[in-house]
Amino acid sequence: MSSFKVRDPNRIGVAFIGVGRMGVTHVKTLAGIPNIRMVVVADHGRDRAERGRAVAKAERAVTSSEEAILDPAVEAVVISTQTNTHAGLIEMAIDAGKAVWSEKPIALDLTETQRIVELVASTGIPVQLGFMRRFDPGYEAAKARIDSGAVGRIEMFRALSRDTYPPGLEFLKTSGGVFLDMAVHDLDLARFLVGEVDEVQSWGTVLIDDRFAQADDSDTAVTMLRFRNGALGVVETSRRSTWGYDIRTEVAGSTGKVVIEAPQKTSMVFSRDFGFEADHFENFPDRFEVAYRRELEVFFEALVDGRTPSPGPADALETLRLALACTRSWREGRPVRVAEVTS
Amino acid sequence: MSSFKVRDPNRIGVAFIGVGRMGVTHVKTLAGIPNIRMVVVADHGRDRAERGRAVAKAERAVTSSEEAILDPAVEAVVISTQTNTHAGLIEMAIDAGKAVWSEKPIALDLTETQRIVELVASTGIPVQLGFMRRFDPGYEAAKARIDSGAVGRIEMFRALSRDTYPPGLEFLKTSGGVFLDMAVHDLDLARFLVGEVDEVQSWGTVLIDDRFAQADDSDTAVTMLRFRNGALGVVETSRRSTWGYDIRTEVAGSTGKVVIEAPQKTSMVFSRDFGFEADHFENFPDRFEVAYRRELEVFFEALVDGRTPSPGPADALETLRLALACTRSWREGRPVRVAEVTS
Amino acid sequence: MSSFKVRDPNRIGVAFIGVGRMGVTHVKTLAGIPNIRMVVVADHGRDRAERGRAVAKAERAVTSSEEAILDPAVEAVVISTQTNTHAGLIEMAIDAGKAVWSEKPIALDLTETQRIVELVASTGIPVQLGFMRRFDPGYEAAKARIDSGAVGRIEMFRALSRDTYPPGLEFLKTSGGVFLDMAVHDLDLARFLVGEVDEVQSWGTVLIDDRFAQADDSDTAVTMLRFRNGALGVVETSRRSTWGYDIRTEVAGSTGKVVIEAPQKTSMVFSRDFGFEADHFENFPDRFEVAYRRELEVFFEALVDGRTPSPGPADALETLRLALACTRSWREGRPVRVAEVTS
Amino acid sequence: MSSFKVRDPNRIGVAFIGVGRMGVTHVKTLAGIPNIRMVVVADHGRDRAERGRAVAKAERAVTSSEEAILDPAVEAVVISTQTNTHAGLIEMAIDAGKAVWSEKPIALDLTETQRIVELVASTGIPVQLGFMRRFDPGYEAAKARIDSGAVGRIEMFRALSRDTYPPGLEFLKTSGGVFLDMAVHDLDLARFLVGEVDEVQSWGTVLIDDRFAQADDSDTAVTMLRFRNGALGVVETSRRSTWGYDIRTEVAGSTGKVVIEAPQKTSMVFSRDFGFEADHFENFPDRFEVAYRRELEVFFEALVDGRTPSPGPADALETLRLALACTRSWREGRPVRVAEVTS
Repeated sequence: MSSFKVRDPNRIGVAFIGVGRMGVTHVKTLAGIPNIRMVVVADHGRDRAERGRAVAKAERAVTSSEEAILDPAVEAVVISTQTNTHAGLIEMAIDAGKAVWSEKPIALDLTETQRIVELVASTGIPVQLGFMRRFDPGYEAAKARIDSGAVGRIEMFRALSRDTYPPGLEFLKTSGGVFLDMAVHDLDLARFLVGEVDEVQSWGTVLIDDRFAQADDSDTAVTMLRFRNGALGVVETSRRSTWGYDIRTEVAGSTGKVVIEAPQKTSMVFSRDFGFEADHFENFPDRFEVAYRRELEVFFEALVDGRTPSPGPADALETLRLALACTRSWREGRPVRVAEVTS
Repeated sequence: MSSFKVRDPNRIGVAFIGVGRMGVTHVKTLAGIPNIRMVVVADHGRDRAERGRAVAKAERAVTSSEEAILDPAVEAVVISTQTNTHAGLIEMAIDAGKAVWSEKPIALDLTETQRIVELVASTGIPVQLGFMRRFDPGYEAAKARIDSGAVGRIEMFRALSRDTYPPGLEFLKTSGGVFLDMAVHDLDLARFLVGEVDEVQSWGTVLIDDRFAQADDSDTAVTMLRFRNGALGVVETSRRSTWGYDIRTEVAGSTGKVVIEAPQKTSMVFSRDFGFEADHFENFPDRFEVAYRRELEVFFEALVDGRTPSPGPADALETLRLALACTRSWREGRPVRVAEVTS
Repeated sequence: MSSFKVRDPNRIGVAFIGVGRMGVTHVKTLAGIPNIRMVVVADHGRDRAERGRAVAKAERAVTSSEEAILDPAVEAVVISTQTNTHAGLIEMAIDAGKAVWSEKPIALDLTETQRIVELVASTGIPVQLGFMRRFDPGYEAAKARIDSGAVGRIEMFRALSRDTYPPGLEFLKTSGGVFLDMAVHDLDLARFLVGEVDEVQSWGTVLIDDRFAQADDSDTAVTMLRFRNGALGVVETSRRSTWGYDIRTEVAGSTGKVVIEAPQKTSMVFSRDFGFEADHFENFPDRFEVAYRRELEVFFEALVDGRTPSPGPADALETLRLALACTRSWREGRPVRVAEVTS
Repeated sequence: MSSFKVRDPNRIGVAFIGVGRMGVTHVKTLAGIPNIRMVVVADHGRDRAERGRAVAKAERAVTSSEEAILDPAVEAVVISTQTNTHAGLIEMAIDAGKAVWSEKPIALDLTETQRIVELVASTGIPVQLGFMRRFDPGYEAAKARIDSGAVGRIEMFRALSRDTYPPGLEFLKTSGGVFLDMAVHDLDLARFLVGEVDEVQSWGTVLIDDRFAQADDSDTAVTMLRFRNGALGVVETSRRSTWGYDIRTEVAGSTGKVVIEAPQKTSMVFSRDFGFEADHFENFPDRFEVAYRRELEVFFEALVDGRTPSPGPADALETLRLALACTRSWREGRPVRVAEVTS
């Protein structure tokens, strides 16, 4: 229903903002998307902006996000900046009538997120958030099986995520905590694959690093979910894995089960000494390499086709509410209904 | 510390009681154990007793459990009867100075179980309970890795069990409920692999069959565990699986992770139509075939060596207490400390 | 077609001959088969005979094979002696009207094997040979898929076998060579799964141990097969594997492919240090544990049902001919038609 | 040793020639390589040239390969045209002093290939051929294990390749046959992973489609290899697979074995009805997606670093010789020494 329309579907003008670690991955992806024109890359750091421009093969580099967004040749803005700037940049882009792809989350609080949801609803500007796992071919295949009815009535959900490297203390203090910063990916998958959640109960603890205690956070957590459709679920979350990036998701129903877990990083198995070994993925950039590419390709396909891109702000809002419910449950030591989280 | 001693380690006299479905499996195993002499097989049903005798190649068949236990040639009694008879038969055997291997549980209530624990402690009679998963080579290998220190400090436990076929209503009413009858295997593994549990929280629901509601029971349940050593855990329990017997256990620590899950029933993979397929195990008899054999072999090895067989009544007691805590948590909708379950 | 008939299907009298390493496995299996009566165990060594008797729970132990075979209570003879005694013992048993299960091969030369084939044909005595792989559940499942038509027209066969430990020099000298002693299992599978072979070409070499050269044998060999039905095949054979018993078989056709390879010995996978590891089977006793049990169970089922047991002497003869063709091809450095091997 | 030097390592001028199916994949890859400047895309078809230009975001499109190669801004030429044009275009580029990346083969005959080898040797111009499998992370990992010594002395090599879709008759007639057109990838891997081959024997047949017989070609073939270092090998080649692109390579040595086979296309496994299923890769574009990207990235890295890119013409020559030896062996029904193939 968007009034947004690209001028030339073979040459959509794009601004990119935020050349951090993931930003470099994103601009490389953008360089390979045929029907876009990389107009400008912005970063507060001049060197980073310039590096982004080179990789993106963009026309220019600037240090002002505003300048990039307002460039008349720009029709779509791709945001990969720090979390606390997302909402402001998204709003600026919407106000300028530019489509937006932004890293999740919109914000760490409901009010600001709600404001963006309403802005998008009233303007019809296309906005997509970076829940990349939805675009991993494994999760896409799982979703297709579920939607086809092959799994039957869903009875149980299970998600496990272990990040490879624990974040630093400075980041921890502004991260929103383990549920908003990390479990949020699994909570989004719960909503994507099973449906809305009614009630949660979370337990958290500090086993890995005392910095998590200093940040009033957990590094190891478990959560139970009760879905509106009656299914139950569990989520396991850990901030560190010495054996690599450890992601596994399971959805079981009355007639079938889907399990998503990348079996091994390369296609090589080494046998020796009465056994064999193979490698795990190291971290999200290698495990979700395809998903990071697909989520951007799909965004531009939606712009060309005039479809509302997904997942959008409303999804981000409900997933945030769910993560806040987990946080509250953990802090207050009680089950929390998701609907009671209104701020 | 047992005063029990076998007369001839090459010819231990054995009585077998209870020729049900698992009983036939057990007598077949016993027939293949070299250093025992199958003296007598008992079952209330004359035909079943006789069939058991034939398979066991035992000397005689009787319809009285007492007669079998008290036979002077019998040194060890193997019990595979209905749950509500276990405690009585174990007690009778202990009183007669006979070693006991019995299907779990001793009983569904703490008091009776506690009584057997004390009886064993005071008499020194060897008693082993049928928690067969401990003898599956996969779980044995996992335990060895954990004990070797390769997993490091344990941080998380996860167990999933889905039985293939839901039980009938009559059985349900006397089963003790999903936690005592089914999750108990995973709770025993939690104690075996990680250690004692401090607190639990369980949610249950009825999604599979309304008979579970009639029996005031759940068919689908999730549980969170907090271990004394600080680790967290989740247990998923389902009474029905249309894709086969679905058992998976994971223990993650600071330096490694063990996962126990039987990859496929046979060694054959069939490729066709851009994909491949293989078979799952159907049910516990095929998945745990080796474990059902090993648990009995190990019992007789312990008798010969004069070692206390394990797991014994004290293990059965603590696992029962844990299952009762889960049941209470589910019924009362609150976290339950295991230590508060005293009756 | 056999005139042979068991007296009491619940109590077939059995003699066992040859208590070597595999013999102990066999008598343990026999002890657990319900409808047989272990009459006698024979071995030239008194101690071994006695040990076999104890494990088999047999009635008596003797040092004379002839005495065991001729025992009037014996209806079936199970032979697990050295290769060069098989034909003689089989003949003695047939002459005495006793059914026979014997380890393969009947003999290492065609003439003697042919003689037994004719003896069986003329007497109708049931004789089964120990090609155990046919009874592995994976191979049984593969055969069922092929017979169902799911694989379509067969186009290619591939078999790989690596024994864990190379045999000693003394054994090598009488083994018949790598094709008769080892590749024979894969050649039997080729016939079992695909059909008769028309032509072979084999290359062999010595890479592992110079003793193979001393024995005028190969330790590493590859073979190409051309089947009568037009399919092609390859067989790889190695006398030593430092990573465990390495067996893989593949049959590809116009609509599907079966692959038989046991994925891992136990159900445990250990993740650590950006990778994971699991164990291979060590050797044939653990890899084919079920097959060694099934091949004997199936033999007695056939006796009870009055069916001709399989694989019988005619299968052994054709598989031997194929192995001899490979040997000749290797020695003479040329392709060999199987039909030209007549002595 | 090359006198070739890029002008600006951050902006190597590139011409691309041949916008067929794989060509589109290649230009998409090139668009995402940061340090190159896509100067021109050429194809005899105006529309294809233009499409390639758009995807590559190149500066211009032309219909003349010569015009593209001779463009002064062009420093490197990427060739993805039909096989019979490779040698001519490579020569033209070398003469113009431009670095070359070309799809394999250089040519289907030794003389022409030899000529290019000599030209490269005398000019020092960097030339890389598109044996993409060497850049698959699985094969890279296997090579690393072998080079590290972990596999020990190599004893056996096995390669299986099944293409998904058989080619059309017109292509078949000019393809050079199954060994030059298809087995060549496995023969290159044999040389890459094990070393030079001394002798081959190949059998071929027609089982899939009579068009292969019309083209005097085989659709199903097996080959035995004898390596200079004493190792033996087998190669299985099939022109059609109904279950997807079927590629498996094994290298076994005295202390270990590497197996390269992509386990499944997506990370999703679906369990249902007492079994599970997952998907195979469909064809080379999805199976070797990363390799097709890496082979080009690595080429430009070599140009920037002043290293000779690999695999170069000398590799292409020896692999061609090996494929010709297989073809000759098949046609003449005899073992062929690779060294005897001189034209």
